[in-house]
Amino acid sequence: MNFQDILEEKMSDDPLHAMRHSCSHVLAQAVLQMFPEAKLGIGPAIENGFYYDFELPRTLIPEDLPLIEKHMRKIAQEKQLFKRYSKPTSASILFLKKIDQKYKVELAKDLKKDGEKELSFYENVMPDGTPRFVDMCRGPHVEHTGKVGEFKLTHAAGAYWRGSEKNPMLQRIYGVCFPTKKELDTHLAQLEEAKKRDHRKLGKELELFTFSDNVGPGLPLWLPKGGILIEELEKLTKEEEFKAGYSQVRTPHLTKGKLYELSGHLKHYKDSMYPAMKVDDEEYYVKPMNCPHHHMCYSATPKSYRDLPLRYAEYGTCYRYEDSGALFGLMRVRSLQMNDAHIYCSEDQFENEFIGVINLYLRYFKLFGIEKYVMRFSLHDPAELGNKYVDEPKLWIKTENLVRKAIKKAQVPVVEVANEAAFYGPKIDVQIWSAIGREFTLATNQVDFAVPKRMGLYFIDEKGKEQTPLVIHRAPLGTHERFIGFLIEHFGGAFPLWLAPVQIQIIPVSDKHLSFARKLRDDFFRERFRVEIDDTKEGVGKKIRKAELMKIPYMLVVGDQEAQEKKLTVRSYKTKEQTKHTLEDFIEKIREEYSLRKS
Amino acid sequence: MNFQDILEEKMSDDPLHAMRHSCSHVLAQAVLQMFPEAKLGIGPAIENGFYYDFELPRTLIPEDLPLIEKHMRKIAQEKQLFKRYSKPTSASILFLKKIDQKYKVELAKDLKKDGEKELSFYENVMPDGTPRFVDMCRGPHVEHTGKVGEFKLTHAAGAYWRGSEKNPMLQRIYGVCFPTKKELDTHLAQLEEAKKRDHRKLGKELELFTFSDNVGPGLPLWLPKGGILIEELEKLTKEEEFKAGYSQVRTPHLTKGKLYELSGHLKHYKDSMYPAMKVDDEEYYVKPMNCPHHHMCYSATPKSYRDLPLRYAEYGTCYRYEDSGALFGLMRVRSLQMNDAHIYCSEDQFENEFIGVINLYLRYFKLFGIEKYVMRFSLHDPAELGNKYVDEPKLWIKTENLVRKAIKKAQVPVVEVANEAAFYGPKIDVQIWSAIGREFTLATNQVDFAVPKRMGLYFIDEKGKEQTPLVIHRAPLGTHERFIGFLIEHFGGAFPLWLAPVQIQIIPVSDKHLSFARKLRDDFFRERFRVEIDDTKEGVGKKIRKAELMKIPYMLVVGDQEAQEKKLTVRSYKTKEQTKHTLEDFIEKIREEYSLRKS
Repeated sequence: MNFQDILEEKMSDDPLHAMRHSCSHVLAQAVLQMFPEAKLGIGPAIENGFYYDFELPRTLIPEDLPLIEKHMRKIAQEKQLFKRYSKPTSASILFLKKIDQKYKVELAKDLKKDGEKELSFYENVMPDGTPRFVDMCRGPHVEHTGKVGEFKLTHAAGAYWRGSEKNPMLQRIYGVCFPTKKELDTHLAQLEEAKKRDHRKLGKELELFTFSDNVGPGLPLWLPKGGILIEELEKLTKEEEFKAGYSQVRTPHLTKGKLYELSGHLKHYKDSMYPAMKVDDEEYYVKPMNCPHHHMCYSATPKSYRDLPLRYAEYGTCYRYEDSGALFGLMRVRSLQMNDAHIYCSEDQFENEFIGVINLYLRYFKLFGIEKYVMRFSLHDPAELGNKYVDEPKLWIKTENLVRKAIKKAQVPVVEVANEAAFYGPKIDVQIWSAIGREFTLATNQVDFAVPKRMGLYFIDEKGKEQTPLVIHRAPLGTHERFIGFLIEHFGGAFPLWLAPVQIQIIPVSDKHLSFARKLRDDFFRERFRVEIDDTKEGVGKKIRKAELMKIPYMLVVGDQEAQEKKLTVRSYKTKEQTKHTLEDFIEKIREEYSLRKS
Repeated sequence: MNFQDILEEKMSDDPLHAMRHSCSHVLAQAVLQMFPEAKLGIGPAIENGFYYDFELPRTLIPEDLPLIEKHMRKIAQEKQLFKRYSKPTSASILFLKKIDQKYKVELAKDLKKDGEKELSFYENVMPDGTPRFVDMCRGPHVEHTGKVGEFKLTHAAGAYWRGSEKNPMLQRIYGVCFPTKKELDTHLAQLEEAKKRDHRKLGKELELFTFSDNVGPGLPLWLPKGGILIEELEKLTKEEEFKAGYSQVRTPHLTKGKLYELSGHLKHYKDSMYPAMKVDDEEYYVKPMNCPHHHMCYSATPKSYRDLPLRYAEYGTCYRYEDSGALFGLMRVRSLQMNDAHIYCSEDQFENEFIGVINLYLRYFKLFGIEKYVMRFSLHDPAELGNKYVDEPKLWIKTENLVRKAIKKAQVPVVEVANEAAFYGPKIDVQIWSAIGREFTLATNQVDFAVPKRMGLYFIDEKGKEQTPLVIHRAPLGTHERFIGFLIEHFGGAFPLWLAPVQIQIIPVSDKHLSFARKLRDDFFRERFRVEIDDTKEGVGKKIRKAELMKIPYMLVVGDQEAQEKKLTVRSYKTKEQTKHTLEDFIEKIREEYSLRKS
């Protein structure tokens, strides 16, 4: 069960769920009015709205949606009742065949196979009793179509019947739906804002990254401006990790398959790995995770209890195979530059180390202004021991309890999920919400009691005995790919000074101010600020608009007055205010802004 | 022809060469005295000495070498003359068969195939004319065996006949040889020092890196202390590159084969690449070079002459297939963390950019105390156009001249080598010599006029026309692997403060000084210094010796006096002196030492 499913499950008890699901029936009825030959797929409620899948005689165009909406509004005005009734399963199948709904027939047959004795239907009837539309459905629904709330169809997209490429492609119409006009408008405004902030769109406009058909899908290339984001994030994490007692290791991206036999990845993780390369008669793999490599660093020299805890960090780039259809911008990629680390500790040290990790997460959340987050604690499923999970029933329970205790102590919001752990131990994913309320799954944190044992890692304890260390896998900033994707949307591309690819744009009024502009640039450059001069022939107004589009934190317009007075006219992107400073004062101001990483 | 060959060619005019080559004949005679059934392979002079390959009835043990040397000394005392004579080739073959020297027979037969009419022999005869030893040989030789100088056999090792695994393994005996005892002793002392400084030995002792059989040969894993070297070097290059106007890009380690078809790597470089992986019915490769990826970054957005020069830097790790037999410590590896960058410029900008690169090299050499270096300028061979080299005869000449002119202007020592260029343009390798005079090939710098054109890179010039940029490939610090290998041997593991994995070792006299020691550690830690406390139960003397072995720049012994006076007793590894400082003064001192990267 994924997080989306959990949300949906919660939603089914929700009056909003009945309203949105009823809205999808209204949509289906409207579509049948326009295309009587339409075949209906499924039409569930989802977060913020609903969708319905149809087989239609032609492909929908955007102009169709307002027409369908018009039909829907009329149906809503008619206040058609939702009437529930049941039929024996076989009779239901005959009925669905009669109304020529082949997908529904297929669903009903499956329910029959599952042993369902009877199936329920919801029929929309006019207040005078005239039937208008019927759908096989579990419900629940609202009383009548006048109660389906305020809705809007947002878009249509292709969707395979039952999600399988082998089945026909249907057309899915999405809509949003809220109890009040105000809520709907707020949500639509948010959607509009989200569209503007789309990291794929901004990534291109701000020249942060690119994809190339010659390199391959899911393998982003980071352009110079995106490279700065990466460099600054790495500087941040390396500082924080130095303070927290981590050390940096570096390991190759390739390894013999032998390592993954030992670690268990070939048994449990092969589907997500790139295929093997045959070198010197051995199979080599591109690494999908850093842990087995780090374990080899650990075991390179003997370890005693005095050496623990050991914290090995690495920005190791991993490669994971994802189906090309699942790839999505920076959010779902095949190359992962991970803010990774592995902490080797004794059981006594575990709680402290674990809380230390949580605190690191919280420090980052504060720094980036992430106000809403939930930790999702994934547990094993005893039924899957030896299959999906290493077969250590007692250690699973023990470790899960250790983690539960530590999370409780750290007082962070948490939700527990069964059967979603890593193969070697319980896992914590972090869900965060951006400034405009979009949700992202970001960082992960795992506890591993199994692989260290399998790979023979040990330390000598106080009594001279060999003990297996526990390993905490943690990656508070997740991957550069996804985290920067998040940051682009979170900041809408207007990065704080410390992250901004270009921090200061110098705008000379005319060519005669170029030499003063260049002197200024050199002054900032010496202080390690990222500065550019707009020396094109365009007018000041246009240059300012260009810098605004690039969302550069500060613009310095340099004309006669500035050159004579030796004062700077500074326009701030954030406040849109224009202020005057001496060079020294301004440098002092931005130096502080940079070093405190103000956002 | 490789650099070794060039050296050897020069050496053949050299009286030292004749002396060392004569010494190898003396070795062969001595070995035949001890093992009359020995079959002789080849026995050339090499830098500082000579070797000879033998097929012997048993494997040599180290104790054999002094015995062989004893025979050699006797032969030297006998002042046997070197007498040259020639025989027709067929007669030579019959003669070599008669004396049962099958490898010599094989060589003679090859010479016959090459059309040699007669072959020359050198015979050693006693002053009274008694013949002692004969060898087919081109010479030249010294007058008699009394003139073979001062020699010493250093070691024996296996060597395949004619360097091929398909042939029998012979035993190669190495010796060094100098005109005087003093020169020999100096060289032996240097060898001894080089052995102590061997990066493989120190790498293990100082816990810098490790290899794992589970990961694979040629794929080093960098342990925390080695990770610090990498981090510090990257900090250095990123600072220097920021100052020099570079920007950082990041590109994936994988790519579709399509990219290398376009760039020409699949045609010209495939043997050095890892094999393909089949993903989604496409062939993917692990990158052996960063350039094609950088070219995709370049072409992601349109470029104008205003944008040039563009300097894309990346510490991109590349993977190259090397035969496992050729792998050697960090010097010859399969994973290469390169200090890479590509400069895209117009022809007018080329000279400035090229000199800028050379200056960067020189700045680094100065910083690391590299006093001796030579640039080796590799040219194309017109006979290999279209085969080993891209078929652009005019562009080759033009580009080589551009480079020659720039090198001349930069006034660096240079040697030109034919037929050693990269497939896409002329190449400059840098030979450097370590503090103890060992030679390393380190950095490379290439000019590429071909691939940018093939890949359709362009910029719009002042006249609105499309132009192909020139590309300078440069990697002043080469790879981390080889450069750190060099640094380990150059500094003998005693790194300057800025590079030292542990900068300060705090040595509490007893447990009661631990709390003061910890306070001190925290003070240094806050200042970002890398500090460790030796809190074992051992005595101060032993703790100091341990810190000496780890070559830690500063040791602070902390006892009653230090705790009371609040003064630090500082022992310097470099000067072996002990001085007293207040904490503030000492921090000031090392802060400066660090920021200036003093060595």
